[in-house]
Amino acid sequence: MAVYTDVSDAELETFLAEYDIGDADALKGVAEGVENSNYLLTTSRGQYFLTLYEKRVDPKDLPFFLGLMDHLSARGINCPKPIHGRDGNAVRMLAGRPAAITTFLHGLSPRRIAVRHCGPVGAALAELHLAGRNFTMVRPNALSVAGWRPLFDGSRAKADDVARGLARELEGELDVLEARWPKALPTGVIHADLFNDNVFFLHDKLSGLIDFYFACNDALAYDVAICFNAWCFEPDRSFNTTKARALLQAYEKVRPLEAAEREALPLLARGAALRFLLTRLYDWIHTPANALVKRKDPLEYLTYLRFHRNASSLADYGL
Amino acid sequence: MAVYTDVSDAELETFLAEYDIGDADALKGVAEGVENSNYLLTTSRGQYFLTLYEKRVDPKDLPFFLGLMDHLSARGINCPKPIHGRDGNAVRMLAGRPAAITTFLHGLSPRRIAVRHCGPVGAALAELHLAGRNFTMVRPNALSVAGWRPLFDGSRAKADDVARGLARELEGELDVLEARWPKALPTGVIHADLFNDNVFFLHDKLSGLIDFYFACNDALAYDVAICFNAWCFEPDRSFNTTKARALLQAYEKVRPLEAAEREALPLLARGAALRFLLTRLYDWIHTPANALVKRKDPLEYLTYLRFHRNASSLADYGL
Repeated sequence: MAVYTDVSDAELETFLAEYDIGDADALKGVAEGVENSNYLLTTSRGQYFLTLYEKRVDPKDLPFFLGLMDHLSARGINCPKPIHGRDGNAVRMLAGRPAAITTFLHGLSPRRIAVRHCGPVGAALAELHLAGRNFTMVRPNALSVAGWRPLFDGSRAKADDVARGLARELEGELDVLEARWPKALPTGVIHADLFNDNVFFLHDKLSGLIDFYFACNDALAYDVAICFNAWCFEPDRSFNTTKARALLQAYEKVRPLEAAEREALPLLARGAALRFLLTRLYDWIHTPANALVKRKDPLEYLTYLRFHRNASSLADYGL
Repeated sequence: MAVYTDVSDAELETFLAEYDIGDADALKGVAEGVENSNYLLTTSRGQYFLTLYEKRVDPKDLPFFLGLMDHLSARGINCPKPIHGRDGNAVRMLAGRPAAITTFLHGLSPRRIAVRHCGPVGAALAELHLAGRNFTMVRPNALSVAGWRPLFDGSRAKADDVARGLARELEGELDVLEARWPKALPTGVIHADLFNDNVFFLHDKLSGLIDFYFACNDALAYDVAICFNAWCFEPDRSFNTTKARALLQAYEKVRPLEAAEREALPLLARGAALRFLLTRLYDWIHTPANALVKRKDPLEYLTYLRFHRNASSLADYGL
């Protein structure tokens, strides 16, 4: 949670003059997201979301992210819809940062994930995959299998301080995953970060998906595998088959998986667990314990990784 | 800026069931205030502000603060109006903290203070003083002259690390102010913290006053003196007479000062400068440099203090 860049009333007025959404009635920095500065903007026309992109987002990726949100919302996906200025642009500078306004989505993220959330998430993910099919821009997944070893190299020397034997175990994982990672699965645009804080519910119905700043092109089934990790483990780190079944069945009602995708899911889930383990490990090692950003325990994902490693087919998940 | 206490969707639902403001559509932690956890709450009925009181606010003071906001808003002051639950209570527990919902005020705080802001601030302060006259609850000002020496005692040993000779200078100030502090001025409810981030403007009109969590009973003219410090110094720490004149004239149009109040203003302004110097000094010394909360430079107020010390009447301010 953070607001890194301050926006003055005068800067905001100049910025908003480029748009047709009325004058600012209020601007509140929101404690949401660790990558960007986010503001809730109220104008005479309603509520909007204002994002200033901080240094972890490459400005070259913004046309992809905002173009994707345009594309998806035009196809009925409830995601933030970029507001374009009178010049047609959705991104312009504000307080020295590239910035964009989007619509404001209603809903609350579920804090405790229940089975009833998992079906709607599976269905929304499949709808996202279908809606993204004819999106023409491309952004490779920097955090897929090819990116994991360089990421690990940045943490290797201190990995064993986090857990004894961790460096060696991850080394072995990388060897296996690099050798066996599937290359011929159906690909498309994936969300790549569909955790519970990026999904809104309203009156027990899924009301929106947010945070497309990891979206990229990759195997669609890899997104399902990420959701297995994000939605189907309990706080005690046990795997909840009922949740996974609800998620997968709802996904397949919208977009049935091919046989190769179903077969690959345990390995993809193992890779997804490693991906989040590696970024968390990197942040754990490189973020001071008393820093503004709260560090997330990387070892949670070691438990998940080992669980997936022991599964050789969906039957081993009870699916 | 901070959100200290997390509120889950389930806790919020239970909490809101006690109110008649509809169901939660969205809840965003806002990066505002360093004392409390603040959320922007959107319900089917509109926008509200949700505050969870953290440990720096004494729960025993909440009836005063919320009762005052009730009182003032009933008398036409644009301040947050507490929303009462069906049981009549404006405060109840949420996520382990006392919490209250208020109306949401529109407006933006001016970042760069201009002369055009100072008249409306003076008028609003006087209206606040008049509207507070028949408020029956009492809260002594813990940060008035009697509170300054104990506050200084907590910083004295390290004061000279902040500026050479500071301990001795402040000691001398305390002696003078304790001896000469006026005791017979008109008193009432004062805001006591009316800085620019607590005042909203909309289309160049003052649209609201917020943050009544320092409000207390004290000399009304002391509130004017606080505003001299808060609104009338330039970024280079020079005193802007035009701003002070605009503020004072607008105040007196609503509530003319008595002769004793005008005479006391230089001393009151000196005391107000010392009060903010002392709290900033305390925070400076006791907050780690890399902490979440941004420390404010105490020496800014040393400049102001010395300026007021050299004034013996309002004429010395050009007023």
